[in-house]
Amino acid sequence: MRGIYYNGKDAVYREDLPMPVRTEKESLIKIHVCAVCNTDKEVRKGYRPDFRGVMGHEFVGEVVESSDPSLIGKRVVGELNASCGKCIYCQTGRPTHCVSRRVLGMANKDGAFAEYMTIDTNLLHLVPDNLPDEIAVFTEPLAAAMEILTQIKISPDKNAAVLGDGRLALLVAQVLSLTGIDLTVIGKHEDKLKLFESFAKVTTCGEKEGYEYVAECTGSETGLPEAFELVRKKGTVILKSTYAGNISLNMSMIAVNEITIVGSRCGPFEPALKLLSEGKIKLPPIELYDLKDFEKAFASRAFKAGFSFT
Amino acid sequence: MRGIYYNGKDAVYREDLPMPVRTEKESLIKIHVCAVCNTDKEVRKGYRPDFRGVMGHEFVGEVVESSDPSLIGKRVVGELNASCGKCIYCQTGRPTHCVSRRVLGMANKDGAFAEYMTIDTNLLHLVPDNLPDEIAVFTEPLAAAMEILTQIKISPDKNAAVLGDGRLALLVAQVLSLTGIDLTVIGKHEDKLKLFESFAKVTTCGEKEGYEYVAECTGSETGLPEAFELVRKKGTVILKSTYAGNISLNMSMIAVNEITIVGSRCGPFEPALKLLSEGKIKLPPIELYDLKDFEKAFASRAFKAGFSFT
Repeated sequence: MRGIYYNGKDAVYREDLPMPVRTEKESLIKIHVCAVCNTDKEVRKGYRPDFRGVMGHEFVGEVVESSDPSLIGKRVVGELNASCGKCIYCQTGRPTHCVSRRVLGMANKDGAFAEYMTIDTNLLHLVPDNLPDEIAVFTEPLAAAMEILTQIKISPDKNAAVLGDGRLALLVAQVLSLTGIDLTVIGKHEDKLKLFESFAKVTTCGEKEGYEYVAECTGSETGLPEAFELVRKKGTVILKSTYAGNISLNMSMIAVNEITIVGSRCGPFEPALKLLSEGKIKLPPIELYDLKDFEKAFASRAFKAGFSFT
Repeated sequence: MRGIYYNGKDAVYREDLPMPVRTEKESLIKIHVCAVCNTDKEVRKGYRPDFRGVMGHEFVGEVVESSDPSLIGKRVVGELNASCGKCIYCQTGRPTHCVSRRVLGMANKDGAFAEYMTIDTNLLHLVPDNLPDEIAVFTEPLAAAMEILTQIKISPDKNAAVLGDGRLALLVAQVLSLTGIDLTVIGKHEDKLKLFESFAKVTTCGEKEGYEYVAECTGSETGLPEAFELVRKKGTVILKSTYAGNISLNMSMIAVNEITIVGSRCGPFEPALKLLSEGKIKLPPIELYDLKDFEKAFASRAFKAGFSFT
């Protein structure tokens, strides 16, 4: 089988990977499309030093074998985190935080940069017929953007800023915009900001202490201190960016100004599929490559790059 | 008039202070008792470099003159922050965050380490007759502890930890304990922890990732990283400590573990007066000094020190 494998040092293209064998509760998936996420680039740089295996987790595929025979032949997307069902987090409604979770393409589980993959059947979600693979592949990152709505009340009579103008920002901004809130997107690239103009105010310079909610989506360590400058007192900073290492922060001002900071990660797939299938989320086209050209896919400056297997 | 004055360099005892004159909307207060807060020590160290004036803000006194004549002769406590009524924060229910607020003993307003003080009448709260001055003087710090309940839902079927074993911790711990939640207090001083034993588990070593809520009340910059270790994934860290300077934090783990951090400061006086007058909050006695002995009061190792004028 063909796939992109992380060997502990780098990502490599291989044609000799064994065909995966499903366990009793899993399904075998034939991958149609799989997108490169920034996390994949981090894995390649050593973000998950213990991981060895097939990379990738943002996929659309077809069920070939399954613990649930009614799924065979169906088109699916799937959640990243396989949980144990027994730990404190699994037993209290937080399975994505399972202490012994296996994570597609990142932790103790082969991912989706390959022709076939196995996954726990209960992590699969059916893709509506009207939703092409090239759009359905955005389900996982859109779900992560929608996680915000599961965590905090976004009151549409207030205002919000999204900090950043990349992929994550475009998804988060659209999710926030659908609440009807007065939304400003603050970015550094005038060309990228054009993508936001139809549903938000855009600017390269936000208003100091001007926003009740600030979603930090820069992916950079300079983002959070900037978010602290932009948020109103008693406001909320949503923390989406991840990066290596510590940053230096004045946390006393968080107490004095009574700021709330909400860390936010993986989110709900079904509402994401609903919005995508209704056309409520607009996205630039994904740029698709053959697996062999994975270096090009990883280096692509497109809004989103990935692999096609058809 | 006698008082403790901050002259931009240090706190000094003076007997030549002018008698304060109230404005139309203010009251003139004869101070009975005023407690030393850690913030007063910070002011002395230069925390508020622009401030010149009488220090102190945790007071109990008697109304001598007032814009509301019905208050004359009544015993009162008072809120710190005088607000403008016009700015974005005043107009959206956040007067303690008023952009041009005057703060007793800290910002553009003489405080309560003096025989007399003026204060906006709308900041005053009547002290119930059964509540002695020596307990009523805890209203302001207790209100700050109760601010937590105005900000987040404390679900009593979960568990909580208070990090710290000082004054702030004792108030926050009692407030949390009154919700009925399973509470652990994590401190460094076995003698101080004894004060918590009647209503909480106490330990010098908390359980890693063991608590849904962690209230950081250490007053030290080492507290927050420790709180991050103690809180469960998807849990909440309440940030009460303030200290000078920045600290180094791994904020990516806040995103990945979906931690919420809630900065918390001044709180509601009426519920604090209610709990104090009902005897629901237990506190060691305040140690009272004459104004002349302010150095002893500032250096006191008692649970709480202050000044008596009677």
